[in-house]
Amino acid sequence: MRTTQFSKGQGTGNDFVILRDRSGMLNLSDAQVRWLCDRRLGVGGDGLLRATRAGLIPEWEGDPDLWFMDYRNADASIAEMCGNGLRVFAKFLVDEGLLSRYDAVIATRAGLKHVIVHGDGTVDADIGPASVSGDPVTVRLGERSWPATPVDVGNPHAVVRLDSEEELFGLDLTVSPVWGPPEAFPQGVNVEFVALTGPDRIRMRVHERGVGETLSCGTGTVAAAAAMSRATGYEGPWTVDVPGGTLAVALSAEDSRLTGPAVIQARGEVFVPEF
Amino acid sequence: MRTTQFSKGQGTGNDFVILRDRSGMLNLSDAQVRWLCDRRLGVGGDGLLRATRAGLIPEWEGDPDLWFMDYRNADASIAEMCGNGLRVFAKFLVDEGLLSRYDAVIATRAGLKHVIVHGDGTVDADIGPASVSGDPVTVRLGERSWPATPVDVGNPHAVVRLDSEEELFGLDLTVSPVWGPPEAFPQGVNVEFVALTGPDRIRMRVHERGVGETLSCGTGTVAAAAAMSRATGYEGPWTVDVPGGTLAVALSAEDSRLTGPAVIQARGEVFVPEF
Repeated sequence: MRTTQFSKGQGTGNDFVILRDRSGMLNLSDAQVRWLCDRRLGVGGDGLLRATRAGLIPEWEGDPDLWFMDYRNADASIAEMCGNGLRVFAKFLVDEGLLSRYDAVIATRAGLKHVIVHGDGTVDADIGPASVSGDPVTVRLGERSWPATPVDVGNPHAVVRLDSEEELFGLDLTVSPVWGPPEAFPQGVNVEFVALTGPDRIRMRVHERGVGETLSCGTGTVAAAAAMSRATGYEGPWTVDVPGGTLAVALSAEDSRLTGPAVIQARGEVFVPEF
Repeated sequence: MRTTQFSKGQGTGNDFVILRDRSGMLNLSDAQVRWLCDRRLGVGGDGLLRATRAGLIPEWEGDPDLWFMDYRNADASIAEMCGNGLRVFAKFLVDEGLLSRYDAVIATRAGLKHVIVHGDGTVDADIGPASVSGDPVTVRLGERSWPATPVDVGNPHAVVRLDSEEELFGLDLTVSPVWGPPEAFPQGVNVEFVALTGPDRIRMRVHERGVGETLSCGTGTVAAAAAMSRATGYEGPWTVDVPGGTLAVALSAEDSRLTGPAVIQARGEVFVPEF
């Protein structure tokens, strides 16, 4: 067993275990990552954010002194980007006094990401461009099916527009959506179901690949906003209501900015078993 | 917002937020209790264990200097007893240096409880007598029904004996069991489904009232052991396998002793919102 400092944070209900590891000494096994994210046996979270020095990441070719966000899913698999995770990560660095500027860049597997940590706890994160595809796909959920818009935000999304909030609330997302043609998303896809609730406002529910329905998904809100911009001609900014709260999304050809609350709710020491 | 020290602990997968409040100054609102037990927004747990001085509890008539276990469910309701909670509570007191004797008594709403914290992390807790009723009830789950044995362990239980482990593994406990006659358990009931796996060993799954299936239930294992002693004539001790681990149960006319692992996995400070 070893004792490690940790923080726990969340953004619109996506929660994370955060570890400070500037010198790259932690060397956590996959089993330890899964244990840390286990909600009963460990600390609990949708994923683990390890803060380390960018120069310690072999594939990193930029400024070695930046903070690098080493994101792992709760099952210990590596993910390139997590929009809410990036916002919580930035809040953590500022709260811990590890980032002297509130307007900074963070190194990630998806490249450099610009973040702004506001005094009220809101965090902006630029998470990269959203690319809307012209090739429609079909999403099926149980007996029903809809046309969907594929959007790439570094990870794959399919956005289904519904006619009303009532229809959105009525969906049974304990069932996994399926899609066609199968080759559209060979690595699986996150499916966003959205309803327009105003000229600049969307309500969204999301089914994340390999996870199920979640309270929020940062890249999913960006995908939803991008698909609705394409459909309506309104360019944004969009307000997106998700089950875990509300986010704002601004889109440009080069980037997407995700804005919303990020909270560090606890910090302390965790006693990690050796396995 | 206020900053409060906390620990998080678990026993066979039942997990708890533990707060030290000797002087009774915390005055948590129900909303704050729910927040602390929220797995995404707060720390996360099946319940909250507040360690305070027994003399501060108005209804306590015994030694005022004992530690009192003020147990709250995750929905902020008060429960009299929680077998795994008591074992985790005792481990917390010893780990924090708040209990100088490893063999001690703890004050609870169900009276004085004797605990022994062993050096290997195992904790024994005497949780009170189990009273097996001779009036059988019927438990129904979906299309199936069985006779069940009512057992009172300070809280109400109904124990259903199945023919095999395969039958036990095959149950769908996402459905809530119902019982008859309804007046047998006016406050609801915890239902244990058990299969005998050896002369002194039981495998058990439990559906807790108001919660659903859980990884473990301390009083439920005692109820299961007591019902199987009545059925088989074997007086114990019993080994009880639950989804979250293994517990031992020893029964006597006056008391029941629950033995198994208790772990404190993290400690630190939590930033509790005011509401």
